[in-house]
Amino acid sequence: MSDSQDEYVTRTGEKQSIFPRRDPVVHTRNQARWDGPLGEEALSSYERDGFLWFEGFFSEERVEPFFDELRNMANDSELMNSKRVIKDPEADEIRSVFAMHEISERFSELTRDPRILGMIRQLLGSDAYIHQSRINDKFGFQGSGFNWHSDFETWHSEDGMPRMRAISASLMLTDNNEFNGPLMLIPGSHHYFVPAVQKTPDQNWKDSLKAQRVGVPEQEHLAWLARRGGIQAPKGRPGSLLLFECNTLHASNQNMSPWPRSNLFFVYNSVDNVLTDPYCGNKPRPDFLAARENIEPLAMND
Amino acid sequence: MSDSQDEYVTRTGEKQSIFPRRDPVVHTRNQARWDGPLGEEALSSYERDGFLWFEGFFSEERVEPFFDELRNMANDSELMNSKRVIKDPEADEIRSVFAMHEISERFSELTRDPRILGMIRQLLGSDAYIHQSRINDKFGFQGSGFNWHSDFETWHSEDGMPRMRAISASLMLTDNNEFNGPLMLIPGSHHYFVPAVQKTPDQNWKDSLKAQRVGVPEQEHLAWLARRGGIQAPKGRPGSLLLFECNTLHASNQNMSPWPRSNLFFVYNSVDNVLTDPYCGNKPRPDFLAARENIEPLAMND
Repeated sequence: MSDSQDEYVTRTGEKQSIFPRRDPVVHTRNQARWDGPLGEEALSSYERDGFLWFEGFFSEERVEPFFDELRNMANDSELMNSKRVIKDPEADEIRSVFAMHEISERFSELTRDPRILGMIRQLLGSDAYIHQSRINDKFGFQGSGFNWHSDFETWHSEDGMPRMRAISASLMLTDNNEFNGPLMLIPGSHHYFVPAVQKTPDQNWKDSLKAQRVGVPEQEHLAWLARRGGIQAPKGRPGSLLLFECNTLHASNQNMSPWPRSNLFFVYNSVDNVLTDPYCGNKPRPDFLAARENIEPLAMND
Repeated sequence: MSDSQDEYVTRTGEKQSIFPRRDPVVHTRNQARWDGPLGEEALSSYERDGFLWFEGFFSEERVEPFFDELRNMANDSELMNSKRVIKDPEADEIRSVFAMHEISERFSELTRDPRILGMIRQLLGSDAYIHQSRINDKFGFQGSGFNWHSDFETWHSEDGMPRMRAISASLMLTDNNEFNGPLMLIPGSHHYFVPAVQKTPDQNWKDSLKAQRVGVPEQEHLAWLARRGGIQAPKGRPGSLLLFECNTLHASNQNMSPWPRSNLFFVYNSVDNVLTDPYCGNKPRPDFLAARENIEPLAMND
């Protein structure tokens, strides 16, 4: 168990109330907040909703090569048999490949793209490093969904991430539409910490990457938050970018269409928020799920 | 096995090709087609897509009492223990109650509503009776989805419905939105018969009402039809009405929202298309799933 004070107690085996978050949403304070690159409209919207959607942030030409890399990886049998590749529970296909920024120079450069990294530094109020990265793939008709959860709840409990000071970036490689299982978010849910009930089983990550069971909020809490904030599922063409706060509740439904849904996913954590021992008391998860080694501040790729 | 010629062979245990339907979509011919109540725009749209959506067909006041009936039924332990009540596989809640038009006078009157029955007679080119009726309920967060299928494929194989000359009506009791598992349809799919592979197990209906496994089309056929026609999920407020042709492929995803989704569902079959012995060779399903007794032509409720 971590030595540091646990500000977000969860998974105690008992039902607990939800409570307001104890961290700011935008961490840059006062005058520095207005140094950009995001203007006050975007900052306020991020503070209110817990995410920002950039339709067509990159051109389709820019993202196509990542799709090729995914296809090549599927033919790399050594990689495919490694633990960092997660197969779909319903189909024998790639669901996720982790630590992509260590495998792919193109991916690594993307995480250091000045346009993205600039926004991240402003929102986190500090330098950042990559806590986790992956490529997600949902095949037509087969990609199964993912239950509602806050990433922070897992990262805090299982990885020892102390505070809410991390941001997920998701870059769409395919169209995200109503029928191929797009990411759904509950706007405003990041303002509350929603403790889960069930204790974390040892090596929970071996199951949880396929289907979230532990760390799922109580239905009454979900209902309260969704009735309050609604549900949104950003949709758009390849190259669109979603930034969402680490505590924003999100989920996805099954892909019931013939259209695959693929995206890149990379998590920025503040260098002032590095991992301690997991608060759940278990052993840390592997480095490809929660970086402890390579945590140097990212430099802009010029 | 039925004596009549089987125009739509399915579930032979072997893979078969899809083929164009051998029945008209609108059965009223020539001059009689223009006697109404539907105009040529609606008729052509129904012929092209296989369904018609009427946003706010009834007022919310008109549909509210049905919602109360559903709540009362949940407290009727005798009814709840009968075979005509199907529970959700994930949750111990009502999923469907069958033969509603025999239980509820209000429901029976609805099936004879002149506005609906007029359209049905025009589309079927004959008088009609109720082949099946039910109320469907998807609780918040719990209602599971239903895989792609054509109702006609099942009714032909398991009920001995000879030809494509039936229409399903679905009346929304709640909002149908993007997140509570609305019905999805593949426009134009009704133009093809998509044979299923797997043979029909004996008493298949005991499983199939909870989750469709037999009678699900091959993915390559689904993909071809969905790429051709797209996917649509009509959404709207309580009182909205959907009419869809018996062979239109449809499905629904899981309800991942706190908002329940309930609708009434009733199937009109032409009096010139009454059931024979099931083409799959099994015993007929119970009368509450496929009417053989009460097949008098419906009279308008004036």
